[in-house]
Amino acid sequence: MNLLENIRIILVEPKYAGNIGSVCRAMMNMGITDLALVVPDEHPDWEEARKLACHAGPVLDRIKLFRTLEEAAADCTVVAGTSARTGFYRDHACLPREIAPVVLDSAAHHKAALVFGREDKGLFNEEIAICTHLLNIPSSECYPSLNLSHAVMICCYELFLLAGSGDYKPPRESSPEATGRMRELLFDSWSRMMLETGFCEKEKLDHMMLGLRRIFNRGKLTDNDVKILLGIARQSRWVAAELEKYRNPATP
Amino acid sequence: MNLLENIRIILVEPKYAGNIGSVCRAMMNMGITDLALVVPDEHPDWEEARKLACHAGPVLDRIKLFRTLEEAAADCTVVAGTSARTGFYRDHACLPREIAPVVLDSAAHHKAALVFGREDKGLFNEEIAICTHLLNIPSSECYPSLNLSHAVMICCYELFLLAGSGDYKPPRESSPEATGRMRELLFDSWSRMMLETGFCEKEKLDHMMLGLRRIFNRGKLTDNDVKILLGIARQSRWVAAELEKYRNPATP
Repeated sequence: MNLLENIRIILVEPKYAGNIGSVCRAMMNMGITDLALVVPDEHPDWEEARKLACHAGPVLDRIKLFRTLEEAAADCTVVAGTSARTGFYRDHACLPREIAPVVLDSAAHHKAALVFGREDKGLFNEEIAICTHLLNIPSSECYPSLNLSHAVMICCYELFLLAGSGDYKPPRESSPEATGRMRELLFDSWSRMMLETGFCEKEKLDHMMLGLRRIFNRGKLTDNDVKILLGIARQSRWVAAELEKYRNPATP
Repeated sequence: MNLLENIRIILVEPKYAGNIGSVCRAMMNMGITDLALVVPDEHPDWEEARKLACHAGPVLDRIKLFRTLEEAAADCTVVAGTSARTGFYRDHACLPREIAPVVLDSAAHHKAALVFGREDKGLFNEEIAICTHLLNIPSSECYPSLNLSHAVMICCYELFLLAGSGDYKPPRESSPEATGRMRELLFDSWSRMMLETGFCEKEKLDHMMLGLRRIFNRGKLTDNDVKILLGIARQSRWVAAELEKYRNPATP
């Protein structure tokens, strides 16, 4: 099985069509062909993109368009977002060489995605929240910001090298890993629980959820894990609702 | 000492000015700033190059122009040429990750160069001959040919990672390494010797010299090594000339 076939590159709102084309070429050079674009409004200048794609037409032709990152990553288990900045929730970024085995392990059984943000503004916090891992490409302090296609190339190069090396052995899977869709269900249900049980106030919920996402993304979450965690939330919410009945008995 | 300062990127006859600009950016992202172009005739469209260089103006502004690769690499010890093709004299190519410590070892005391050929035709055999090492960037069989700036980025990335890692310790130098200029003197003198002693015929000289270059480039050559080898050639040529006097005594 070719692990690289299960790897998706996601570009979030790329500004320059030429970059899309250059990304197609970089991907195909490294044996990766699944490209998704998150383009809510405008549509790219395909002619310009095709020029830069050179002989990577096959990658360009099968690009999939999505309106949100959540949709683009819905069927992915590992979702690694690139971030140049540091700060809250961005401090735990790995290097491309460190993330490569994590991505390939996932790709052995599922789709895994690498996410690249806007050329100027990168990924927004709500997009970072969707990522299971953060990725930081090392670069010089004098000029740390890479061209989009260069950033994609470095990541694809590390994946290609590892996938092709005799050293890498994909793992056997005991329980299927949870997809992005399952994880989002989980986080939605837990945020409701946290509000309904009075664990935290509405203003602090987003901040709290970022922390919680980090905890759950630290290791792999299987389908079974998510089912258990969904059950816990459901039960607590039921308890909270029961309590509410006693405190504010419905007027008959 | 910053090892990366001693690394030179040499582009041989780049066709697209945009690629020159993109290469500037990739280099500066990875802390490498010495760029040389081999441009015998035409001059690049600097405006287009500057657009793609983005904030890498400092690299663009200090580009040096040369008429031949020999001149561009004259002061370099290690000269690693990239080659996509295989074949005679190209079979011994290393991976970027393998060449990185060789280049940094040299950069600890001298200039070391990475050479990238034309977008369409790569490096010619006579340019490959000048290189002390060959470098091959792994890529997919479906589309092996990388964009020029992507190829430069991968090599610079490997150098930046290694130079910045705590693992790398530059070597102490016992005897100074020979520069490109010294090596070319050596090869010139040996090819004369081979002809004058009758070791090989003129038609076979180029082929023979490629083999000889490979032998001498297998390890490092110091200044002293080159002086000894130059002396050997000088002596043999003197013997050959003496013999010639006996065989064809000058008519008085």
